[in-house]
Amino acid sequence: MNAFGQLFRVTIVGESHGPAVGVIIDGIPAGLPLSADDFAVDIERRKGGVQKGTTPRKEDDFPLFQTGLFNGHATGAPMTIFFENKNTRSGDYEKQRAVPRPGHADMVAHQKFGGFEDFRGGGHFSGRLTVGLVAAGVIAKKILQHITVKAELIEVGGETDIEKGLQKAIDAKDSVGGIVECRVSGLPPGLGEPFFDSVESMLAHAVFAIPAVRGIEFGTGFAAAKMFGVDHNDPIENSEGTTRTNHAGGVVGGITNGNELVFRIAIKPTSSTPKEQVTLNWETNQQEQFSVKGRHDLCIALRVPVVLEAVTAVVLADLLARVNAVPRVWTA
Amino acid sequence: MNAFGQLFRVTIVGESHGPAVGVIIDGIPAGLPLSADDFAVDIERRKGGVQKGTTPRKEDDFPLFQTGLFNGHATGAPMTIFFENKNTRSGDYEKQRAVPRPGHADMVAHQKFGGFEDFRGGGHFSGRLTVGLVAAGVIAKKILQHITVKAELIEVGGETDIEKGLQKAIDAKDSVGGIVECRVSGLPPGLGEPFFDSVESMLAHAVFAIPAVRGIEFGTGFAAAKMFGVDHNDPIENSEGTTRTNHAGGVVGGITNGNELVFRIAIKPTSSTPKEQVTLNWETNQQEQFSVKGRHDLCIALRVPVVLEAVTAVVLADLLARVNAVPRVWTA
Amino acid sequence: MNAFGQLFRVTIVGESHGPAVGVIIDGIPAGLPLSADDFAVDIERRKGGVQKGTTPRKEDDFPLFQTGLFNGHATGAPMTIFFENKNTRSGDYEKQRAVPRPGHADMVAHQKFGGFEDFRGGGHFSGRLTVGLVAAGVIAKKILQHITVKAELIEVGGETDIEKGLQKAIDAKDSVGGIVECRVSGLPPGLGEPFFDSVESMLAHAVFAIPAVRGIEFGTGFAAAKMFGVDHNDPIENSEGTTRTNHAGGVVGGITNGNELVFRIAIKPTSSTPKEQVTLNWETNQQEQFSVKGRHDLCIALRVPVVLEAVTAVVLADLLARVNAVPRVWTA
Amino acid sequence: MNAFGQLFRVTIVGESHGPAVGVIIDGIPAGLPLSADDFAVDIERRKGGVQKGTTPRKEDDFPLFQTGLFNGHATGAPMTIFFENKNTRSGDYEKQRAVPRPGHADMVAHQKFGGFEDFRGGGHFSGRLTVGLVAAGVIAKKILQHITVKAELIEVGGETDIEKGLQKAIDAKDSVGGIVECRVSGLPPGLGEPFFDSVESMLAHAVFAIPAVRGIEFGTGFAAAKMFGVDHNDPIENSEGTTRTNHAGGVVGGITNGNELVFRIAIKPTSSTPKEQVTLNWETNQQEQFSVKGRHDLCIALRVPVVLEAVTAVVLADLLARVNAVPRVWTA
Repeated sequence: MNAFGQLFRVTIVGESHGPAVGVIIDGIPAGLPLSADDFAVDIERRKGGVQKGTTPRKEDDFPLFQTGLFNGHATGAPMTIFFENKNTRSGDYEKQRAVPRPGHADMVAHQKFGGFEDFRGGGHFSGRLTVGLVAAGVIAKKILQHITVKAELIEVGGETDIEKGLQKAIDAKDSVGGIVECRVSGLPPGLGEPFFDSVESMLAHAVFAIPAVRGIEFGTGFAAAKMFGVDHNDPIENSEGTTRTNHAGGVVGGITNGNELVFRIAIKPTSSTPKEQVTLNWETNQQEQFSVKGRHDLCIALRVPVVLEAVTAVVLADLLARVNAVPRVWTA
Repeated sequence: MNAFGQLFRVTIVGESHGPAVGVIIDGIPAGLPLSADDFAVDIERRKGGVQKGTTPRKEDDFPLFQTGLFNGHATGAPMTIFFENKNTRSGDYEKQRAVPRPGHADMVAHQKFGGFEDFRGGGHFSGRLTVGLVAAGVIAKKILQHITVKAELIEVGGETDIEKGLQKAIDAKDSVGGIVECRVSGLPPGLGEPFFDSVESMLAHAVFAIPAVRGIEFGTGFAAAKMFGVDHNDPIENSEGTTRTNHAGGVVGGITNGNELVFRIAIKPTSSTPKEQVTLNWETNQQEQFSVKGRHDLCIALRVPVVLEAVTAVVLADLLARVNAVPRVWTA
Repeated sequence: MNAFGQLFRVTIVGESHGPAVGVIIDGIPAGLPLSADDFAVDIERRKGGVQKGTTPRKEDDFPLFQTGLFNGHATGAPMTIFFENKNTRSGDYEKQRAVPRPGHADMVAHQKFGGFEDFRGGGHFSGRLTVGLVAAGVIAKKILQHITVKAELIEVGGETDIEKGLQKAIDAKDSVGGIVECRVSGLPPGLGEPFFDSVESMLAHAVFAIPAVRGIEFGTGFAAAKMFGVDHNDPIENSEGTTRTNHAGGVVGGITNGNELVFRIAIKPTSSTPKEQVTLNWETNQQEQFSVKGRHDLCIALRVPVVLEAVTAVVLADLLARVNAVPRVWTA
Repeated sequence: MNAFGQLFRVTIVGESHGPAVGVIIDGIPAGLPLSADDFAVDIERRKGGVQKGTTPRKEDDFPLFQTGLFNGHATGAPMTIFFENKNTRSGDYEKQRAVPRPGHADMVAHQKFGGFEDFRGGGHFSGRLTVGLVAAGVIAKKILQHITVKAELIEVGGETDIEKGLQKAIDAKDSVGGIVECRVSGLPPGLGEPFFDSVESMLAHAVFAIPAVRGIEFGTGFAAAKMFGVDHNDPIENSEGTTRTNHAGGVVGGITNGNELVFRIAIKPTSSTPKEQVTLNWETNQQEQFSVKGRHDLCIALRVPVVLEAVTAVVLADLLARVNAVPRVWTA
């Protein structure tokens, strides 16, 4: 099911070239003040067109509140926010119906849904749906209050100088991948549950809903596999659980330990590269040369930070609600 | 909640030094033949004591079927399997109650459960609970039939020659981490759902339930972040969706594409290193020298492959059931 | 959370006087043919204004497909259907903000949501939201194919002659309750799971989502409490499980037995009676005389059958998917 | 799945004649004091053998804590409690394998699980599993603290004088049904969610997990269907929401209104009547005379009150946790 969260629950719907994409959010505290203005900054961050290397498709992306908002406050009932799809050019896709774009979901969607999938612009699989995630994130961040969620692009095409990485892609007339890091400060210790609902489990679950993510690592991550135990362990310094180093990235045993939460995700290069490629034509059953029409990002990772923040905030709002739910440490 | 899966549902319970650890499995098809013998190989693989670098704690780990098995077949009702804890030395832990072991969950458990946690041997946070996962995996693998799930340790302490990596740890009198790779062949295309219940989301969710996992990556994973699009995309070769390369690791758009599923996980070095470390004593509120008593693994990654196979099989059994549930492509 | 179902999942959203009410449905098989016409009959059955005793509020109730439909077929992605609220007179409600209508959710909504609830026309608690349920029911009925779900009003105000019962209410210038019976034929045996996900549990859960329902009984229901065992038991006649009598109403041990499913629900009289009543004014903190303005049904039970069919079909579509999911009786 | 609850989650497992029946409970606050003594009274109430008309099968029913309890307090990890099955006479059932007992789940279990079901004493469908529910109820009641849940048998065989109703059954050499009423005082207003997770939905869902329940009604229940609106509505008296009458039974719009919660359930006569009956023999495919061997209750309703209290307490503990989870009325 296309939903995430137990107590702060987010459902995303829509297709790239359908009437609209949207998000339904259940579990918002009644009385939370909200207006369209609250969404402007994050929605702008997600949009293409501003930074070098992002898609020229422009959408207003004005949030249309269909339900759950009344007199500028959340009502406590499920909130529905829609974003109209205006700037679509479906013809681009209809012409190439039988030619699945390499790296995109065209082929798997066809296999799974037997040809009934909305194929225009990737349909339901489109990155367009992340606008709903961003909207949910705006609300989750409000709920988190003094907890700060901040993601940034730290590497493009293997370069920590992002401009340099982008230039490599421009020079190569190709797309390129990147790494996004997320840091959360102000988290209380005790979020997450042992084993299946560990903080890493919940975050990783939600993070892999973001298109193009190929990996996630917490704290030292894959580098931990090369370390000795004495170097990896973080010495505990005080009764709040503050550690001298933070190799754990703020999570031990699946539970937040009160230190900064740190994790990174790997983003593959945009599948729609300007380069010529080879793919199947399922009508002729022959491979053929393929070159992308449509409009796309040179480096999709540029647009990911705000989406990663959103998804992270959604997960944390849900975990926080769960900790509120049960009075850990019985005091009756 | 300590459970995973929608249709093939696994719940794990228990503490390292309590009477037993166990697993409850719901959704096993009635009639599946099962005996204690089916579990022997995988449970043996998980045990310490055989390989260089694994813990000397020995448990029989004989599966006790409490419910759901009758005359050698699954009944269709929930199956409960328990494993007794016999070989415990709780005294080791009681002496050091106020001194949380670095890298372990002792401190976060104390923060979360206010001192009521069972602290002996890590209690509910112990790797001991993975025996239940392994048992669930045995059953899931049977259900998967011709789908083969195979995990192996491919790197220890930065060395692909595993013996060499272990020797480094032995020489350093320290513990060491590693990388485990999982490959699944025989998967049909179409498993997984777009966005939140993507194959990567479900696998990552379950995989981070395994203690000591710090990262997961699919296909080219973090290396994808350094690649160009034309190099990363896998050219589709035929109408089954076979691709020439498999950088995607068998998943596109969150859905299996019929190619081999490939992913890797990073395991941190065993937290219980023989080296001296510094940690807090929460009674004196002072930092003090700490050295591990108890019995532990030099390289916990050695024991992870069978657990990773188990968790992977559980996730795939669940996703397979979901695809069976709804007749994709309506034919009425 | 305002959602129901595991594999065929229905979420309802909206408020009586907001922009729209709607339904999100996940788990529709790709390829299911659908058009607005499919909804006309059931939506008309639900509408007020036709039968003696139903509300004069008229809405077009034309289904607006926002997502999940493409070229006249379900795509396999979540389907969103909205119904605009056009014919609202919110002023009726704003005047009486501090005077909760007896029998309505005004007071509990105020207690639960602290004054932030959308109070106009009952807001999210309005029976208006059942239009979304009816839409989900239309789709569920299509999926059920040869399984027939039929509900009818069998008693009004204690009279089995419905016209007579309505006339009693008209004569008394009051509203009146009724009983609706639902019968499902063509069900296979084996739907439902023992204990918590019994057929009765799932149906009762969903049925109590219909406003004004006060009770549900299966087969002989409350009358069973007065019967002897030998009279209540249904003799099994053949290997299909056909029983001579059907006191069980088609469910034994929480599982369908292949006989007709029969259950009844009790509907309270419409809370908005034309009679004068007493209620609190929470501004003055005094009780005061209250008489309903707005537009309402004399007997809400008249509009319930189509909603009950819808909810029943949704539950059965979900239970059917679950039975499809797991190959009961292993045949590998 | 055989589990109920989102935050206070109960799973029941076992078969009547297997090694044991049990319950797994997740979401117990760490530190809740618990001992076997806490269970004695309710487990005794559930047992047969004491009252006229209950089964002579005797079990010690001593709670065996397998997990989640440490030093007399809940640890915060999932708690597992088992009850051994000692006093079984499976031979009674094996002789009549091919003759499904009328009114029991024997036939549907056979249809659903294809002969692999544990048929001894009803297997997983047995009322024996309610001992796990009662254990969960003991814990839930502790969590509810000042909220009092009290159920009692108010009618047997159509008689409000219970002894008289039982005597009718004894005289008729038959079994008989009854009605159990549950009242909950001390509930805060605001529990439950609109529509699908209404208080009635959640309670009805769980209540129909109790074997032999055929109906449930809240407040005036089925009688409401015969009432006029002005007579049914409860006038609100003060700002706490206290109503003069309580026809609603403490729930309006699916939400508790702070008044006493009142509902009733109908229990069918024990299926195992001493009378001769007719049923199928699926080996001969002929109907044949059938008379119950085994040991059974004359009036199963006698044992239901404590089970109904347990199930009610479990639901309320879960709903209470959900209300705690989200700060209704935002105050940041």
